[in-house]
Amino acid sequence: MRLSTSWITPLLATAAAAAVACGGGKSAPTGAASSGVTDLMKARGLSEADVTAALKTYTPSGKHDEYLVFASGGHSGQVIVIGVPSMRIIKYIGVFTPEPWQGYGFDDQTKAVLAGGRRSGQDLTWADTHHPALSESGGDYDGKYLFIGDKANARVAVIDLADFMTKQIVTTELIGSDHGAAFVTPNTEYVIETTQYATPLGGKYADPKEYKDKYRGAAVFWKFDRTKGRIDPAASFAIEFPPYVQDLADAGKKVSDGWAFFNSINTELAWGGNLEGNPPMESGMSQNDMDYLHVVNWRKAEELVAAGKFETIAGMKVLPLSVAAAEGVLTFVPEPKSPHGVDITPDGKDIVVGGKLDTHGTVYSFEKMKALIDAKQYEGKDPYGVPILSFKDSIRGQVELGLGPLHTQFDDKGFAYTSLFLETVVAKWSLADLKVVDKVPTHYNIGHLVSAEGDTVSPDGKYLIAMNKWALDRFNLVGPLLPQNFQLVDLTTPKMQVLYDLPLPLGEPHYAQMIKADKLKPIEIYKPGEDPITGEHATHAVEGGKERVERQGDQVHVYMSAIRSNFKPDIVRVKEGDTVHWHLTSLEQAYDATHGFAINSYNVNVSVEPGKHVDITFKADKPGVFPMYCTEFCSALHLEMAGYFLVEPR
Amino acid sequence: MRLSTSWITPLLATAAAAAVACGGGKSAPTGAASSGVTDLMKARGLSEADVTAALKTYTPSGKHDEYLVFASGGHSGQVIVIGVPSMRIIKYIGVFTPEPWQGYGFDDQTKAVLAGGRRSGQDLTWADTHHPALSESGGDYDGKYLFIGDKANARVAVIDLADFMTKQIVTTELIGSDHGAAFVTPNTEYVIETTQYATPLGGKYADPKEYKDKYRGAAVFWKFDRTKGRIDPAASFAIEFPPYVQDLADAGKKVSDGWAFFNSINTELAWGGNLEGNPPMESGMSQNDMDYLHVVNWRKAEELVAAGKFETIAGMKVLPLSVAAAEGVLTFVPEPKSPHGVDITPDGKDIVVGGKLDTHGTVYSFEKMKALIDAKQYEGKDPYGVPILSFKDSIRGQVELGLGPLHTQFDDKGFAYTSLFLETVVAKWSLADLKVVDKVPTHYNIGHLVSAEGDTVSPDGKYLIAMNKWALDRFNLVGPLLPQNFQLVDLTTPKMQVLYDLPLPLGEPHYAQMIKADKLKPIEIYKPGEDPITGEHATHAVEGGKERVERQGDQVHVYMSAIRSNFKPDIVRVKEGDTVHWHLTSLEQAYDATHGFAINSYNVNVSVEPGKHVDITFKADKPGVFPMYCTEFCSALHLEMAGYFLVEPR
Repeated sequence: MRLSTSWITPLLATAAAAAVACGGGKSAPTGAASSGVTDLMKARGLSEADVTAALKTYTPSGKHDEYLVFASGGHSGQVIVIGVPSMRIIKYIGVFTPEPWQGYGFDDQTKAVLAGGRRSGQDLTWADTHHPALSESGGDYDGKYLFIGDKANARVAVIDLADFMTKQIVTTELIGSDHGAAFVTPNTEYVIETTQYATPLGGKYADPKEYKDKYRGAAVFWKFDRTKGRIDPAASFAIEFPPYVQDLADAGKKVSDGWAFFNSINTELAWGGNLEGNPPMESGMSQNDMDYLHVVNWRKAEELVAAGKFETIAGMKVLPLSVAAAEGVLTFVPEPKSPHGVDITPDGKDIVVGGKLDTHGTVYSFEKMKALIDAKQYEGKDPYGVPILSFKDSIRGQVELGLGPLHTQFDDKGFAYTSLFLETVVAKWSLADLKVVDKVPTHYNIGHLVSAEGDTVSPDGKYLIAMNKWALDRFNLVGPLLPQNFQLVDLTTPKMQVLYDLPLPLGEPHYAQMIKADKLKPIEIYKPGEDPITGEHATHAVEGGKERVERQGDQVHVYMSAIRSNFKPDIVRVKEGDTVHWHLTSLEQAYDATHGFAINSYNVNVSVEPGKHVDITFKADKPGVFPMYCTEFCSALHLEMAGYFLVEPR
Repeated sequence: MRLSTSWITPLLATAAAAAVACGGGKSAPTGAASSGVTDLMKARGLSEADVTAALKTYTPSGKHDEYLVFASGGHSGQVIVIGVPSMRIIKYIGVFTPEPWQGYGFDDQTKAVLAGGRRSGQDLTWADTHHPALSESGGDYDGKYLFIGDKANARVAVIDLADFMTKQIVTTELIGSDHGAAFVTPNTEYVIETTQYATPLGGKYADPKEYKDKYRGAAVFWKFDRTKGRIDPAASFAIEFPPYVQDLADAGKKVSDGWAFFNSINTELAWGGNLEGNPPMESGMSQNDMDYLHVVNWRKAEELVAAGKFETIAGMKVLPLSVAAAEGVLTFVPEPKSPHGVDITPDGKDIVVGGKLDTHGTVYSFEKMKALIDAKQYEGKDPYGVPILSFKDSIRGQVELGLGPLHTQFDDKGFAYTSLFLETVVAKWSLADLKVVDKVPTHYNIGHLVSAEGDTVSPDGKYLIAMNKWALDRFNLVGPLLPQNFQLVDLTTPKMQVLYDLPLPLGEPHYAQMIKADKLKPIEIYKPGEDPITGEHATHAVEGGKERVERQGDQVHVYMSAIRSNFKPDIVRVKEGDTVHWHLTSLEQAYDATHGFAINSYNVNVSVEPGKHVDITFKADKPGVFPMYCTEFCSALHLEMAGYFLVEPR
């Protein structure tokens, strides 16, 4: 290692300045400080770059992070919240999978949220979360809501960033899978959810031998009602697509506002059948040199649906493919083999597509495509009648990136950053002249990447995270199922530099978004007696002094309060076979006073943060004596915050 | 801030040495390095102590941690694995709560593990995990197994550290809650699980007005069969205790091997009834100045049970309280008001008890107590006939600790470390002279604490983690439910110093253990066709080339393989109403080739690491076309690793 003198000289020169600037820092214990930087470097085998990285990421006790990352939790079904630059995971948010620490999926309120995601009456206790989307105003994150899609079961969840709780899950049996979800339009008018694997629309049955005729994709535009903070399924609509296996999606912004873009990977119309004499999907879908970028005028679609030009399938208004093709809603433009990412530049002018079996990033010009569409200047039509634009007339150019380009993010200085899966690097390139200016190796198998506000109209630069798969040797071994690896990359230096490796201990993230932390204004406590899902004072909220047990036939209502350090009542007597309606309100309003409530053997477990009210309904079908207690370490006497649920045998 | 010259001087002096020592480190990009340490300190507001802390914890890409911490996940029901000193969470292990990323609770194998934890036939989808216990040989961690208790539902789980998977959950309806679980005897002969809240033994019903006569506690000694890696319930036994609300437990070691110690908090026999004219539990249980430390001769109990002196209750052999009291198995010694932690010193000679409403740590002498017991020199008996030793004759002394002492850990230099909940500090004190030598503030509400191998016969010192509750202002706000805060403390410096704040993003840890990482030897892949729970070649393991679908009446067996980048078969046709037995084997043997498998709308989701075999059984009750696919980003063509599950309507 070469020890550059430029690195040491400023240390003494600016020591006095630092001493002033660091006022407020705690004075270092002599023993620790005297060991010195170089002694520590030696002891721990740290390079100069490591020291720089350590000091750029280490965040002292009590200091907050500048950015928050919201990452999908993959098939954990959850969302992961990470601070940048400290790279500490601050919260896992329960979304599609019941999570008992949060009581999520254990009280009536959150059970109802999860029930919104049932398909064909089937409870689904997991999801494959893919793409989170922060709510936007004017194309910029506004810090109010987060949406995320479930690829496996074609669902979208709404998370309120006031309390970091999932408030709604929607699904439509129109489609049987998604991938281009969730992506929002620039003012969060719609949350976009697009199919991945085509199925007969509306849950019908058809053999895949009829794939071309009977299988379809679709883009669902879920209408978001900002005043209610909920998706309004009745005001939502979908656009029918050919069964080309649509992949990622992005909404236009600024000049391209009103449009959305989707790529696809299966113009071959392969459907598998590897034990039936067909090629396996992975080769069947990779025959053609070009697939189709779907260019969609969603405002036009909205007008056509409003004008009644839709069919209703599985309760969803669907703009038929024939109408979409004929009315200029859907236009195709060829894109290189097996495209994956589609990302709109901050100014809304260009659409960047990574073709994972190609070495290029292709930069489409919205202006050029729009002109061709307006002039109805097509090269032809696909077998479904969708007009096709000329590839060469639609693009601004291509950038030679390297092996396996996937996804692209942007900074505030006119650069784009593309992940290269096969080369396992991030390539930095100039949007102006489409030239690569830097590459940084990642470890290894990079998928998505995310830069600070890097998919908005005003990216921040500064930081980028390479979202790598399967950290083979990065961390201590923890069995065959490996953590993923988020590598924080410094964008402020002339050459990109990896600052930190973060193992992901639960879930396999796909996409993430990184928002300036000061845009978020979470609440600290709930209003007294608040139902966390409705945000209203709960119907059965319990007031202090009015705790009681009421019996109505075999229906028993328990009105219970929680406050340090007791539940009232702490003895509840019912009879075997009773239905119990438990109404539990936290009377706390202090920030540091969360309680939990659990009953032995009844699978009852809820979290009651200050002010919160929850209801729990269950049948007392097991006679006996069941301890109940507070599951939080809520005071020195938390073990004594307990009682008994007594089920007298009949 | 005072900038000690002692901190800077060594930098230049030892620069050359560092340059040599750091060979192999990457050379720093000029732009990053030239900013210099002090510039970075200034820019990020770092103190000298912060720089030291950063360099003592920052772990460069690819370097492994020296220790692994296994922390309870509280009511998340999981176990958390954390690297030290990097303080990165490397894995959440699914234990009592189904976890879809790991496929845990989704395949037949792990569903059966979870089913082992049913109580009264009730599926339990969460737990309140409290105390993890690494398997021990000769009182030292051996890195083979991990056990953890579920306070809410009185269960114990066995995790195999070969693959970091939960292999077994056991429960007994003898008891209705635990707290002193899991704790192992020095050669892992037994895993100890002790009641917290007393109930009528065996799930019987009795009104709490009969608390004194009909409610009981118990210590269950689960026999661990190391050759099988499983608990053997038939070879296990329990000891009946009075209903004193037993709390923490610890097994004796070295001189005290063969003994176990439990404290208790309710000699008052309070049971609540705050709407029935009784005092609430938290005051009802805090009336007496003394509670009872339970001193148990478990080897004697083992002999008595072997000699047939047991009753069988709910399938468990129980040594009756009267026998335990009469035969010297159970002896009491008073302990100060509301004790919480009970921790045996590394030499096995002393038992340290923290009385949370007392300011002392009380140090009991095993030798003194043993002599009194051998001489049958008792001060009296409790109402249940249990002999009581003299407090003053049983202790070696008391150490004045401060407000709210809870738990104690040890180092290799004769010091003990006790968490003080109310004072929110860690107190370091000398075991030799029972004097406090240092205190370090924590933030805030410290509960447990853990030092490196700090509860074994040979603690390492070096590191300690303060396990704090509710990180009020430490991290960015993420809604009313707060993360916890693990603070890493440096034990190598004359004064203890906090090095790092780690938010816990999921779950509320109680206890943890910290093991030298090189003691763990996890596997990287499974043997071809291995059933991960039995460790054997699976009955229905699929060989490449022999993939098939077999129908037997309405029972359909699917023999499917997974290998990059396809499932075979990728089209599976069944009829509505069929029962489907899916047998899925990964044909991979490369470390970086994990696949997942999901079917839309059927709640089917499994993880198949290399070599692993899983079975999935379900009824095809929904007709339609259901995409199935690999949920892992297993290659550039992972999206094409897919197929269709076709359920033809009847």
